[in-house]
Amino acid sequence: MAVIKVHGHHFSTATAMVFCCLNEKQVEYEFVVVDLPTGAHKKPQYLALNPFGVVPTIQDGDLILFESRAIVRYLAKKYAGQGTDLLGSTLAEQALVDQWCEVQSQSFFSPAAAILFQTVLLPIRGGTTDEAAVAINIEKLNKVLDIYEERLSKSKYLAGDFFSLADLTHLPWTQYLVTACKKGDLISSRKHVKAWWDDISSRPAWKKVAEKMPK
Amino acid sequence: MAVIKVHGHHFSTATAMVFCCLNEKQVEYEFVVVDLPTGAHKKPQYLALNPFGVVPTIQDGDLILFESRAIVRYLAKKYAGQGTDLLGSTLAEQALVDQWCEVQSQSFFSPAAAILFQTVLLPIRGGTTDEAAVAINIEKLNKVLDIYEERLSKSKYLAGDFFSLADLTHLPWTQYLVTACKKGDLISSRKHVKAWWDDISSRPAWKKVAEKMPK
Ligand SMILES: N[C@@H](CCC(=O)N[C@@H](CS)C(=O)NCC(=O)O)C(=O)O
Ligand SMILES: N[C@@H](CCC(=O)N[C@@H](CS)C(=O)NCC(=O)O)C(=O)O
Repeated sequence: MAVIKVHGHHFSTATAMVFCCLNEKQVEYEFVVVDLPTGAHKKPQYLALNPFGVVPTIQDGDLILFESRAIVRYLAKKYAGQGTDLLGSTLAEQALVDQWCEVQSQSFFSPAAAILFQTVLLPIRGGTTDEAAVAINIEKLNKVLDIYEERLSKSKYLAGDFFSLADLTHLPWTQYLVTACKKGDLISSRKHVKAWWDDISSRPAWKKVAEKMPK
Repeated sequence: MAVIKVHGHHFSTATAMVFCCLNEKQVEYEFVVVDLPTGAHKKPQYLALNPFGVVPTIQDGDLILFESRAIVRYLAKKYAGQGTDLLGSTLAEQALVDQWCEVQSQSFFSPAAAILFQTVLLPIRGGTTDEAAVAINIEKLNKVLDIYEERLSKSKYLAGDFFSLADLTHLPWTQYLVTACKKGDLISSRKHVKAWWDDISSRPAWKKVAEKMPK
């Protein structure tokens, strides 16, 4: 059977999510670098795989699949019998995994991405951080993390007492918040969120990915 | 067995998505109105169900579940044996359903919501439409819909030749774009997108929901 190909970039959060999932599931893969700095993701060859021109995209035999959250769900289902279970075992557990993945997607992701953009990406590109925009998004993230703190005071992980996609999808963005963005106080100021972050970020599957991300 | 309770509001797109799914699956439910105009969703009683203070939330026996896309996935799985199959039958089909649900969530939803806000919600609240913001979001949606047009020239529905959650999740927002926002040309100017919309919006499960939404 052909090995899964991952088209992506080591600096990309969405690609990092997929790498982490493959590691958790102990699946070998081939990494095909899409050179974002030279715009390789907007060239016809890549657009034929992913018309949105963003990374990652995977190829698994005939299947071409993009959207990181759809990819990790696919991998978790396909390799249900090996590595870490990431889906939950009952229908109710699976529903809560989906719920917290959606919270990541709908509430956590957007302010985290805005903070990364303002504090890191914009300065790299020669722009100036808009401190008001940073403050607004810190405020949004504070509200979300207060809800996480309450939730994590009741269960060890977001969906329950088991590590799952709900936690895994938070790894790349939280990593950048803590390192490149220097906003670690968002995490360390909350007892249960900190314990959760210390736990999930020290998983070997993630550490291997985080090593390759810029600090 | 206790009937599923849906806490939500008829005007809410996210609630409409859940109603449509319940209709497709031929599941009876009890509708508990959360009175958004009076802020019932920000009061302790509702926040105990959903700490984010948004609708919908469902209660199915002991399970309390929020996030519309997680809810419809749960319903589609729980009632896999009745009504319309919404998930796809092979792992690859299911992956493509997830992929296009993610496209809805990550690329389609945000400009559609911004257009609804600017052209309908803001004026209702006494504000003035920012035409430049409308134009930017129309432009974003045009790019997304060009990709849909290409996709729908190859398969009848987004994930393949079968109706699924991928299509269903697009119904509420597209309904408002076409009716309240008067942006029907986004759809009707594209042959395959138009045929798709005509098809999915005339499904009985959706028509029953759309009737209750403001025009
Ligand atoms: N919704 C997509 C987003 C992917 C995405 O935005 N990837 C970024 C890197 S993390 C990218 O390719 N950026 C390049 C660009 O937008 O031009 C997913 O989750 O896979
Ligand atoms: N991500 C949530 C979003 C829910 C949401 O924003 N619901 C709106 C109505 S469509 C709401 O409750 N708005 C009230 C508010 O934000 O105060 C979902 O998909 O369920």
